[in-house]
Amino acid sequence: MGDLVRETLTMSREGDEEAQPLLENRRFGSNTTSQVAIVGSNICPIESLDYELIENDFFKQDWRSRDKIHIIEYIFMKWILCFLLGVLTALVGFFNNIAVENVAGMKFVITSNMMLEHRYAMAFGVFTACNFALILFSTIITTFLAPAAAGSGIPEVKAYLNGVDAPGILSKRTLFVKIIGSITAVSSSLHVGKAGPMVHTGACIAALLGQGGSKKYGLTWRWLRFFKNDRDRHDLVTCGSAAGIAAAFRAPVGGVLFALEEMASWWRSTLLWKAFFTTAVVALVLRALFDICISGKCGLFGKGGLIMFDVTSENVTYQLSDVPSVLVLGVIGGVLGSFYNSLLQKVLRVYKLINEKGHAYRILLACSISILTSCCLFLLPWFASSCPTIGRSGNYKKFQCPTGHYNELASVFFNTNDDAIRNLFSKNTDDEFHHVSILLFFVTCYFLGIFSYGVVVPSGLFVPVIVAGAGYGRFVGMLMKSHSNLNHGLFAVLGSASLLGGSMRMTVSLCVILLELTNNLLLLPLMMLVLLVSKTVADIFNGNIYDIIMKLKGFPYLEAHAEPYMRQLSVSDVVTGPLQVLNGIEKVSNIVHVLKTTGHHGFPVIDEPLVSDSLLLYGLILRNHLIVLLKKKAFLPTPIPTDIDATRQFSADDFAKRGSGNSEKIEDIELTEEDMEMFVDLHPFANASPHTVIETMSLAKALILFREVGLRHLLVVPKGASRSPIVGILTRHDFMPEHILGLHPNLAKSRWKRLRLHSHSLFKKIKASQANLTAYV
Amino acid sequence: MGDLVRETLTMSREGDEEAQPLLENRRFGSNTTSQVAIVGSNICPIESLDYELIENDFFKQDWRSRDKIHIIEYIFMKWILCFLLGVLTALVGFFNNIAVENVAGMKFVITSNMMLEHRYAMAFGVFTACNFALILFSTIITTFLAPAAAGSGIPEVKAYLNGVDAPGILSKRTLFVKIIGSITAVSSSLHVGKAGPMVHTGACIAALLGQGGSKKYGLTWRWLRFFKNDRDRHDLVTCGSAAGIAAAFRAPVGGVLFALEEMASWWRSTLLWKAFFTTAVVALVLRALFDICISGKCGLFGKGGLIMFDVTSENVTYQLSDVPSVLVLGVIGGVLGSFYNSLLQKVLRVYKLINEKGHAYRILLACSISILTSCCLFLLPWFASSCPTIGRSGNYKKFQCPTGHYNELASVFFNTNDDAIRNLFSKNTDDEFHHVSILLFFVTCYFLGIFSYGVVVPSGLFVPVIVAGAGYGRFVGMLMKSHSNLNHGLFAVLGSASLLGGSMRMTVSLCVILLELTNNLLLLPLMMLVLLVSKTVADIFNGNIYDIIMKLKGFPYLEAHAEPYMRQLSVSDVVTGPLQVLNGIEKVSNIVHVLKTTGHHGFPVIDEPLVSDSLLLYGLILRNHLIVLLKKKAFLPTPIPTDIDATRQFSADDFAKRGSGNSEKIEDIELTEEDMEMFVDLHPFANASPHTVIETMSLAKALILFREVGLRHLLVVPKGASRSPIVGILTRHDFMPEHILGLHPNLAKSRWKRLRLHSHSLFKKIKASQANLTAYV
Repeated sequence: MGDLVRETLTMSREGDEEAQPLLENRRFGSNTTSQVAIVGSNICPIESLDYELIENDFFKQDWRSRDKIHIIEYIFMKWILCFLLGVLTALVGFFNNIAVENVAGMKFVITSNMMLEHRYAMAFGVFTACNFALILFSTIITTFLAPAAAGSGIPEVKAYLNGVDAPGILSKRTLFVKIIGSITAVSSSLHVGKAGPMVHTGACIAALLGQGGSKKYGLTWRWLRFFKNDRDRHDLVTCGSAAGIAAAFRAPVGGVLFALEEMASWWRSTLLWKAFFTTAVVALVLRALFDICISGKCGLFGKGGLIMFDVTSENVTYQLSDVPSVLVLGVIGGVLGSFYNSLLQKVLRVYKLINEKGHAYRILLACSISILTSCCLFLLPWFASSCPTIGRSGNYKKFQCPTGHYNELASVFFNTNDDAIRNLFSKNTDDEFHHVSILLFFVTCYFLGIFSYGVVVPSGLFVPVIVAGAGYGRFVGMLMKSHSNLNHGLFAVLGSASLLGGSMRMTVSLCVILLELTNNLLLLPLMMLVLLVSKTVADIFNGNIYDIIMKLKGFPYLEAHAEPYMRQLSVSDVVTGPLQVLNGIEKVSNIVHVLKTTGHHGFPVIDEPLVSDSLLLYGLILRNHLIVLLKKKAFLPTPIPTDIDATRQFSADDFAKRGSGNSEKIEDIELTEEDMEMFVDLHPFANASPHTVIETMSLAKALILFREVGLRHLLVVPKGASRSPIVGILTRHDFMPEHILGLHPNLAKSRWKRLRLHSHSLFKKIKASQANLTAYV
Repeated sequence: MGDLVRETLTMSREGDEEAQPLLENRRFGSNTTSQVAIVGSNICPIESLDYELIENDFFKQDWRSRDKIHIIEYIFMKWILCFLLGVLTALVGFFNNIAVENVAGMKFVITSNMMLEHRYAMAFGVFTACNFALILFSTIITTFLAPAAAGSGIPEVKAYLNGVDAPGILSKRTLFVKIIGSITAVSSSLHVGKAGPMVHTGACIAALLGQGGSKKYGLTWRWLRFFKNDRDRHDLVTCGSAAGIAAAFRAPVGGVLFALEEMASWWRSTLLWKAFFTTAVVALVLRALFDICISGKCGLFGKGGLIMFDVTSENVTYQLSDVPSVLVLGVIGGVLGSFYNSLLQKVLRVYKLINEKGHAYRILLACSISILTSCCLFLLPWFASSCPTIGRSGNYKKFQCPTGHYNELASVFFNTNDDAIRNLFSKNTDDEFHHVSILLFFVTCYFLGIFSYGVVVPSGLFVPVIVAGAGYGRFVGMLMKSHSNLNHGLFAVLGSASLLGGSMRMTVSLCVILLELTNNLLLLPLMMLVLLVSKTVADIFNGNIYDIIMKLKGFPYLEAHAEPYMRQLSVSDVVTGPLQVLNGIEKVSNIVHVLKTTGHHGFPVIDEPLVSDSLLLYGLILRNHLIVLLKKKAFLPTPIPTDIDATRQFSADDFAKRGSGNSEKIEDIELTEEDMEMFVDLHPFANASPHTVIETMSLAKALILFREVGLRHLLVVPKGASRSPIVGILTRHDFMPEHILGLHPNLAKSRWKRLRLHSHSLFKKIKASQANLTAYV
C-alpha cells in the first residue's frame, strides 16, 4: 500500500514520468525565489510563519480533554502577558529617555562649559571625541553581538507580522543590543531616532514573553504552554509594536493605530482591545514614573525626553484664509518626503556595498558619519550664524556669542533632537530665527537623516523626519508670514506632519501621534488636511519608506492587494513541482528520504481506499510534526492502523512550535535499520482541514484568500475527478512577483503591471551569491 | 448532454433517489433558518450581499478592454464620491444641530417666559403640548413613510456591512424621514440621541451616492457605472458611517475608529485612508459652517449643538491617589451599563408586542412616553428641587425660584440634552448641585433613556447614555470628594465614559470620541483606564448593546469568531440539499424551472467532458446573471458552443448589481415555447474562481474563511475522485447557530456552547408567523 501513490505523484524521485495526465502542464522546476533576506545588517535564511489552526485529530482530542479551568488559565495568561508587556516596554522607554538625556546632557554640559571659558577648539575636540566613542561602541556591539539589531527594526517586525520569520530578529541578544545601541547612538548626536528601535524593542519583549518560558533558564510554567504557537505570538508582537510607539511618544492611542495601520497584516477586534489595554498600561506606568522625575530625581532628565511637546495655545484660531498656505506646505512636504524615500533608497544601496565588505568597513562607515555629523553640528553654528540679542524668553544657547546674545543655530543644532523639536514647535518664537538659519538647519537635517540611517547601529526614522519637517515648516511659515495667522510653532508642527506623511504615508496614526505629542486637539482639521495632501502627492512618486526598505531587504512580503496581471493567471499557472505526498500510513524510510531531499514544510497526506482506485486527500502534515513523530519513534510494525490513543503517547507540548531558529533538524535524528522498515500512522497528526482552491482559481483571488486567512500552505485540488486528489501546493513564495514573472515573462511587459521591480535588482545579486544557504520554504 | 448531470445531482426535482453515493449522508431538508428580520420597525425579507469579485470570462474581457483612462475615471470618482459624502454629511449634521437648537430653544424660550410671568400651569401645558405635537409628527412620518427609519439605525448598518441587505434600509425615503424625524424627536425633549441617526444618515447618503446614478431621475453618468457593485457600495457605506459620527460629535478621528471598531466587518488599509479623508472633509466643512454661526446668524444656535464640550482645564493634574476612585467609577459603570443593556432588551420585547398590534398602537405608545417625559422634566424640578442662591458663574435656570436663586434640577432637566451635558461636564461647578438632585437626575435619565429607545421614531443611544453617565459620574465624584483631587466636571466625563463602555463596549473609538468631544488630551490615561475596567466588568454579564438589538431583530450576522462546537463539525455535517446544478450549456426551460422552484442565488455550473464519465466543476453562476441572460434572450439553437463574443452582446452595465430591492424577478420575464427549447452558454458568465472547501473541512475554519474573504456562496468539494465534483453549497444561513444546533441538537447541551440563544425565542415566534414571506438566500 502506498507505493502506487508515490509512483504516480512523486515522480521526480522515482523518475517515473508517465501516467501523469494531471500534472502534464505543470512546471517541474521548483520555485527558485530566494529564501534569504537581509535581517538587520546580515543576510539570513527566512521561514514562513503559520497562523492557521492545525486541526488534526490529536489537537482535537487534546482540546476536548481541556476543561474550563484551562481556558480560564489561557485567557488569564493572555491578559497577564499583555500587562507585563506594557509594564516592561514602559520601563524600557523610560530608561531609554533618562539614559539619553543624561549621557547627551552630560556631553553638552561639558562642552558648553568649555565654550563659556572660550576654549573653543577643546570643546569641539571633546564633542567630536564623545560622539565618536559613543558611535564606535554602538557599532561594535551591533556588528559583533547582534547584527539583527541594526536599523529601525520596523521593516523586520512588519515582515514578521506578515508571516516572515528570521532567526534572531526577536531574540534576547537583539533586545539587549537594541536598547544599549539605541541609547548610545542617539546620545552620540547622530541623526537617528529612538521610536523605531522602541517598536522593535516592544516586539522583542513580546516575543520573549510569548515563547512560553525557557527550559534553559528553568522558566517553565504550566500556564505558559498554550502560547507556543505562531498565532498567539503574532498577537503579542502586534501589541508589542503598539506599546513601543506608545512608550516612545507617550501616545497610547497613536500606538494602537500605528500597529493597526502600518504594522499589522491581520487584525481582529479582540486584538484592538488587547493592544489598547497594553498601551493603556504603558501610559499609566509612564505617567507614574514621570511623577517621580518631576521631583528632580532623574539627573539631567528634568521633564524632558521626546515626550510631549506641549504646544497648547489658549486659542488656536485659524480661518479659511490659512488653508492655502497649509495646502502649499502639504504639497511641497509630499514632494520632499518622497524624495527623502528615494534618496534613502539609493544611499542604502551604496551603504550595503560598503557594509558587506566586512566588519571593519562597517565600523569605518559609522565613524565617518559620526565625524561628519559632529562637524555639521558644531561648525555650522560657528560659521553660519549671526548673534542676535536675547529676547524676552526662550531656550537660547550662547555658544560663541558674547553675553546677552545667542547663537540661533546652536539652539537647535547643539542640542538633543528632542530639545530641538521642542524649540521649533514652541509658540511666541517667531522672531527667534532667521530665514537663512532655518533653511540651513532644514537642509542639514534632511541630508544628515538620510546619511545616518544605513549605518550599522539601531536607528529610527521618525525623529530625523520630525526634526527636518519642523525646520521646513518654520521656513514656509516665514515665507507665508503675510498670508497666514498661524504662528511659526504651528507651522513647524504641520511641517513635520507633511514630511512624515510624505515619507511614511500613514494617515490616522500619524495624525493621532502628532496630536498626542503636541497635546493640541484644535489643530486636528489642519493636521488631517496636511497629511492627506502630502500622502496623496507623495504616492505619485514612490511607496512608503518602510515598504521600500523591506523590499530592499528582500522580505517576501505578501501585499494586501493583487497585482493586475494576477487576474490573468490561474493558480495552476504558478504551481511548481515536484509535489511530494505521503500516505496515511507511511514507511519511515520514505519519510526520512522526503524530509532529507526537500526543504518543504508541509506534505499532503493521501489515502488509498480499499474499493476504488482513486485516491483521497486526507490532510496536510507539517515537517515539524513529522520530526517529532520520528524522534519519539511512534512506529507501527505493519501498515495497519491500531487503536493506540495518540494523546497517551504524546503531549501537546511535543508539537508546540518552538521559537524561531530552535526547530530540530532531520539530520539530528538517529534511526536504526530496523526503524527504517517500520511504519507511522500519520492520520492523527495531519491537519484534516487544509485550505484548498480549485486549479482554475484566479491567482489574484487565491492571493487574497492566502493573505486574509493567514496561511502558510494552500492546496490546489483538481476541478473534477482525477487520479490524484491534489495538484500542487502554493506557499508565500509562489505569490511573489519575481516568481510569477519568471514563469510568465510576457506579463512583465504587459500594461497591467504596476510593480516597480528595479529596486530588487541589486539585492538579487547579493542574494544569488548566498544561494548555497539552505532554502527554507 | 446534461440530463445525466441533472439526474444524478438534482434528485429532489426528478424524484430519482438512487445513484447518489456521494450525497447519501447529506440532509435533504433545506435550511429552514428564517430569512426575514426586523428592519427599523417592520419585518422584511433580507438578502445576502456579495463582496466577492465575480471573475467570469465576460468580466475579464470587459476588464481587459478598459484602458488606463477608465481606471483613472474610477479612482477619481471614488475620491469625488468620498468628498461629496463628507460635504453632504457635514451639511446634514449642521442642519440637524441648527434645527434642534432652534426648535427646542424656541420651546424653552416660550415656556421660560411664561414661568417668569408666574403662569406655571400654562407653561407646563405648552411644554407638554409642544413635545406631544413634535413626537406625534415624528412617529407618524416614521410609521407611514419609512418604518425602516425607526430606531438608531446602527444595528441595520452594521448588518449591512456584515453582508445582510434589507430593502429600504438605505433608501431616499428612509434618509428623509431619518433627518426630519430625528430633529423633531430630539426637539421634543424625548430622551433620544442624534448620533445613531446621523450614522444611518451618513450610510444612506453613501448608498445613494454609490448606487451609480438613477435612470428614473435621468441621473446617469458614464463615470458612475463602475460603482454598481456591492463591494464599492460597502466601502462608501463604511465611510458614511464614519462621517456620521464625525458630524454628530465633531470627532473626525473618532468617527474613523468607530467605523473600524464597531461597524465594519471587513477592513482594508485603503478603506482607512478613504474614511479618514471623508471625515477630514466633514471636519473642515463643519469648521467653516461654524465660523458663520459665530457671527450670530444661526438663530438660537449660538455656539451650540452637541459639539465640543470644552472642558480644558489649564492643568488637569491627577496623582496615583485618584486611580482607586476612577476604578470604582469604572466597575460600577460597567455593572450599570450591562444592566442598561439587559433592561433595554426586555423593554424592546414588550414594545415589540405593542408595536406589532398596528399603527395606532405605535403612535399611542410614542405619545404616552412623550407625556411621561414631559412630566418628569417639568414636575421633578418643580417638586424635588430646592432653590439655592446663584453663585459666581454658571448656566443657571431660575424656573419657579425667586430672583437671585436658581433651580438646580431645572438647569439640567429643563434644557436640551446637549446643554445638560455641557453643564454637567463643566468645571468649577462642584457646589452647584446637591447629592439628591444629581442622584434623582441620574436615575430619571437612566430609565427615560431605556423607555424612550423602542418608540417608533429615529432615536440614538449615545446621548442618553452620555447624559445618564454624566449624572452618575458627578454623583460618584460627590461621594469621593475627600479621596480625589479631580473636579466633578471631570468625574462627569469619566462617568459618561464608564457607562458608554459598559453599554457599547468600544474602547479606542469611545476614548477618542470623548477626547475630541471634551478637547482634553491630558485625561487620556484615566479615560483608557475607566473604559477598560467598565468594558471588562460589563462583558461578564452580556454583550454589546448593538449586537443585542441586532440579534433581537433577527439579522443573520456572521461573527468574527467560531463557536467552540463548530470545531467538532465538518462542513459536510451542515450542508443541506437539494443541490441544484446547471450544465455549462443549459436548456432554457431547465434554467427557468430551477429559478422558479428554488430561492437560491447561486448555482454551480458543471461540465461533462467528452472522454471521461466524471464531471468537472466549471464555476458558479448567479441568479441575477441568469435572469439577465434570459431577459436578453442570448440563446443558442443547439447545445454547441459558438464563437460569439459575449462582450458584443452585453455591456458590463447589464450585469451591474442594482440597488437593494430593485432586482428583477424571474416571473417578470416572458418566454415563448420556442425560447424554452433553446440553450444558453453559461461559460462566459459563470464565476470560474469560486471559493471552495473540501468536505472534511472543519466548520469553524470554513466560517473564518467565509467571513474573512466576504463570501456569499462557498462550494463544498469532495476530498477525492467521485462522480460529482461538488457536494453542496454553504451560505450565510448555514453558519447560523440556530441552523447548526437544529441539525445537531446534542451540541446545544455540550459544554462547548457559549451562545446565549434565549434572546431569539420570542422573535422566532414573530418570524414564524411571517414565514409565508418569500425566502431569499
